Amino acid sequence: MPHPTTAPTDFFAEHQELLRRATTAIEERGHFSPYVEMPSTSAYGEEAPPRGEAAFQALLGRPFELPGHPGDGLVRGVEVSPYGFELGVDYPRVTPEQAVSAAGAAAAAWRAASPDTRAGVAAEILSRLNAASFEIAHAVQHTTGQAFVMAFQAGGPHAQERGLEAVAYAWREQTRLPGTARWVKPQRRGEPLALEKTYTPVGRGVAVLIACTTFPTWNGYPGLFASLVTGNPVIVKPHPRAVLPLAITVRVAREVLAEAGFDPDVVLLAAERPEDGTATVLATHPEVRVVDFTGSTRFGDWLEANARQAAVFTEKAGLNTVVVDSTDDYTGLLRNLSLSLALYSGQMCTTPQNILVPREGLTTDQGLRTVDAFAADLGAALDRLLGDPRRASATLGAIVGDAVLKRLEEAAGLGRTAHPSSAVEHPEYPEATVRTPLVARLEADADEETYTREWFGPVSFVIATDSTEHSLRILSDAVRRHGALTAVVHTTDETVLAAARQTALAAGVHLSENLTGGVLVNQSATFSDFHGSAANPAASATLTDPAFVLGRFTVLQSRRHVAATAPAEGAGGGA
Amino acid sequence: MPHPTTAPTDFFAEHQELLRRATTAIEERGHFSPYVEMPSTSAYGEEAPPRGEAAFQALLGRPFELPGHPGDGLVRGVEVSPYGFELGVDYPRVTPEQAVSAAGAAAAAWRAASPDTRAGVAAEILSRLNAASFEIAHAVQHTTGQAFVMAFQAGGPHAQERGLEAVAYAWREQTRLPGTARWVKPQRRGEPLALEKTYTPVGRGVAVLIACTTFPTWNGYPGLFASLVTGNPVIVKPHPRAVLPLAITVRVAREVLAEAGFDPDVVLLAAERPEDGTATVLATHPEVRVVDFTGSTRFGDWLEANARQAAVFTEKAGLNTVVVDSTDDYTGLLRNLSLSLALYSGQMCTTPQNILVPREGLTTDQGLRTVDAFAADLGAALDRLLGDPRRASATLGAIVGDAVLKRLEEAAGLGRTAHPSSAVEHPEYPEATVRTPLVARLEADADEETYTREWFGPVSFVIATDSTEHSLRILSDAVRRHGALTAVVHTTDETVLAAARQTALAAGVHLSENLTGGVLVNQSATFSDFHGSAANPAASATLTDPAFVLGRFTVLQSRRHVAATAPAEGAGGGA
Repeated sequence: MPHPTTAPTDFFAEHQELLRRATTAIEERGHFSPYVEMPSTSAYGEEAPPRGEAAFQALLGRPFELPGHPGDGLVRGVEVSPYGFELGVDYPRVTPEQAVSAAGAAAAAWRAASPDTRAGVAAEILSRLNAASFEIAHAVQHTTGQAFVMAFQAGGPHAQERGLEAVAYAWREQTRLPGTARWVKPQRRGEPLALEKTYTPVGRGVAVLIACTTFPTWNGYPGLFASLVTGNPVIVKPHPRAVLPLAITVRVAREVLAEAGFDPDVVLLAAERPEDGTATVLATHPEVRVVDFTGSTRFGDWLEANARQAAVFTEKAGLNTVVVDSTDDYTGLLRNLSLSLALYSGQMCTTPQNILVPREGLTTDQGLRTVDAFAADLGAALDRLLGDPRRASATLGAIVGDAVLKRLEEAAGLGRTAHPSSAVEHPEYPEATVRTPLVARLEADADEETYTREWFGPVSFVIATDSTEHSLRILSDAVRRHGALTAVVHTTDETVLAAARQTALAAGVHLSENLTGGVLVNQSATFSDFHGSAANPAASATLTDPAFVLGRFTVLQSRRHVAATAPAEGAGGGA
Repeated sequence: MPHPTTAPTDFFAEHQELLRRATTAIEERGHFSPYVEMPSTSAYGEEAPPRGEAAFQALLGRPFELPGHPGDGLVRGVEVSPYGFELGVDYPRVTPEQAVSAAGAAAAAWRAASPDTRAGVAAEILSRLNAASFEIAHAVQHTTGQAFVMAFQAGGPHAQERGLEAVAYAWREQTRLPGTARWVKPQRRGEPLALEKTYTPVGRGVAVLIACTTFPTWNGYPGLFASLVTGNPVIVKPHPRAVLPLAITVRVAREVLAEAGFDPDVVLLAAERPEDGTATVLATHPEVRVVDFTGSTRFGDWLEANARQAAVFTEKAGLNTVVVDSTDDYTGLLRNLSLSLALYSGQMCTTPQNILVPREGLTTDQGLRTVDAFAADLGAALDRLLGDPRRASATLGAIVGDAVLKRLEEAAGLGRTAHPSSAVEHPEYPEATVRTPLVARLEADADEETYTREWFGPVSFVIATDSTEHSLRILSDAVRRHGALTAVVHTTDETVLAAARQTALAAGVHLSENLTGGVLVNQSATFSDFHGSAANPAASATLTDPAFVLGRFTVLQSRRHVAATAPAEGAGGGA
């Protein structure tokens, strides 16, 4: 829906109030949600749901159109919906060299634009992505396997808010310094020495976003928008099995860039076949100066070691851990934790894997529960939550790929199952692969090798420890050695709580305490919660903190003599 | 001069006004100089000069005392004054493992202290270093070879101001977020969801400072104080030939830490013999999480590639370039440039090496000067500046080491000398090695191999180019490929000036324009000028910008459910 303008639109003027509110929000860290998270017609209009679905359907089985995009021919798409059909979408084929060259050619005017201008363009892109949330939700659902409502929320408004958050950080950090300043140094004799100085934020160069299959937009937008607003062109390299949501994103970005008077090649799509391996070529290209990545620890570590010419921001994997000591709301604990495990079949980088319980048990408002009783209770809570196939499907979504199914089989093969995984028939999509979580009962010492690797997907372990102190030692060790995106403690004892906080601070992981209500550990509220921590091996980036944007630009300075009494040019302090 | 207190002193209360002024200064970037730069008795007291000299003399020829410092035995010192005598100071011997272990043991209380407390301790250390400026000046003079006034200024107050600047950045960045915030999300039905969140800045871990021979304090203090204030213990590893200034610094830091109630092992000295090679061991130790380094490109590149467990901040070397196009103050240009080349015998990371002049010449207020005439004029300006041995010695200082002398011989061997280097007899120290700068006349194309490597010391080249446009291309290429700390343009043409600014922005180097007055390109004013730029290969750090402190700590979060209507604890936004 391009605006029918001829002169470039001043998107900064349109969005500066939103940018200011977003900047306040990242400082105050309260609740701020500018994009409506429910797929409701009252917010998005009566026509939005059918239009979004029709737009999605119209994309299937044909080449994806990106007018003016560089490259030759098409990449034959390999996307298959986890709900059981091929998407059949082909994408423009562009070699890494073509992409870097086109991005580089588009960079000069974008780099020369002001941070205000770039932030305005980014906010407009987000606004149009928000309007396209239903179309994007279908694309996310049928690439990632997320259930529709989650695909809408996490893939639409929540992803857009993470993007806006990155825009706010990038805008704020670039506009903190005065554009010019007068430096006047008194001399013992004669006129003071005086210099006029200019300070210009300059982007580092071409950025590459290497996205993942499970949350292509939510994990992708922060890097995309942080790089853009700091003055860098971005090459979007989606996972071959989750291209469509990012292709729509690139289409919208290019439309807005063109309307704002910029070369649309400031944002490019570099689709590939699974066998092409372009990520390594792009990430190590000498002209590529920023790399964002979400995905496996193996490839993230490789990027950090090899993409030395670039600032590298990774989100990899870790061992998310729950320490269960005691609770005054056992029912709430079980309800909250079982939902955490079931949501999107545990295919989230935030899903708890290791649940540490003292062998002797935990004290609850329902009496002492041994570790075995707790595992059984958790299994029963999962059964209650997932008893109805319709509701179960809406919670679990579908399994994104064969590797997850294989791990599920391997977990069953451990022979320690406390709650088995079962197949659920999807009410709408009979071909969908839907599975409930498996919970296995392990021992802290004997099974260390098993639970200290990541089992991405619907596999969790209830692990018997000697004591809560032992549990905290395991938490600390797991986070330090393998990293973690999340950690949870359940306790009614303020001493244990204090010890858990100290453990989390020292190990470098964010902590959620006594989650028994409506907030899950998997949920991370934009503008308020940090997602990931560069303090442990699971990530080198935090969504979103100042470090996430600062590595993408440098402030460069020039200075010249002026008469000490000359009037100052622009803002800036003296004395 | 420890305060005779028994209870820990509240240094934050004493220094918070200074910290606030420093924080304002880094934002406004005008002139701010809290420590008096002249070695004057009016500022430092009548007794300061003789006391400082006596304190220095008392250190010579005996073991350096650091009460309670870990380790066993002594490292036999190898420091020799470039003015011609052995210092004969031995230092505590501590192995890398002992140092890391002691720093780690001291870390917990320091990490748990508030940013306010840590900034107050740091400001007190700086205040006492300032009071010890004369002692430090002698130590800097007789390790680096700087002349006394420069050793006082650069090694004393200017270094202390760079330290204070790092303190201000570290303090500001850690105190930007509220300590706690209330997050309240309205629900369609019933009570809002409410969480209370805490945000805690946490240091990354043990920091190591690997310092250089020429500016041990000026280049060392920013990393030392940035690491300290962000909650990290620091192991100071001086260059074996410039230990004393940093040993005094460590002594003062440990005194203040103890008075503030902390373990003095938060700051340690790791002296070594030249053959010990402890820098590589310390920098790659798994517990070491921050490394600061100033020195050779070769070792800096090695650290960046190998100290992967740490945030690495380097300042290496580059090709500092002057583009001469035209001037309306030819006398001022020659005076300013000749002083830039002569200051501390060109042994500064900011000294211009490559002076690019169109072969046809530059237009000046004294007519057109060909490149050969310019080289001759520059040589004559050097002769005028350095004609008097007393004044020459005060400008040149002494040659820091044999490697510099060897390069000077090699440069003479090129057979292209326009101005020869000559020996100067020092009026006070007949054994001092004092040399004037050598200027050679090269050709842009034929001599590229010669001028595209760094000739650290009193060696510069006047290089004939085809045009100013050609000069700018060479500037751009040199900065991109080899890095640079400084760049200068001289022009009266606004078009050329704009092109030079664009070239500097695109290549990633700070630019000084038409320096013909009292400011040299070598000078970088704390709180106003950025030193170095992470945008080119000469450095991965900028002194000082927010990125210089952010990599040293992480903000970690905890969150817990609260009743939405409960009163907020502490500061923090809601909504």
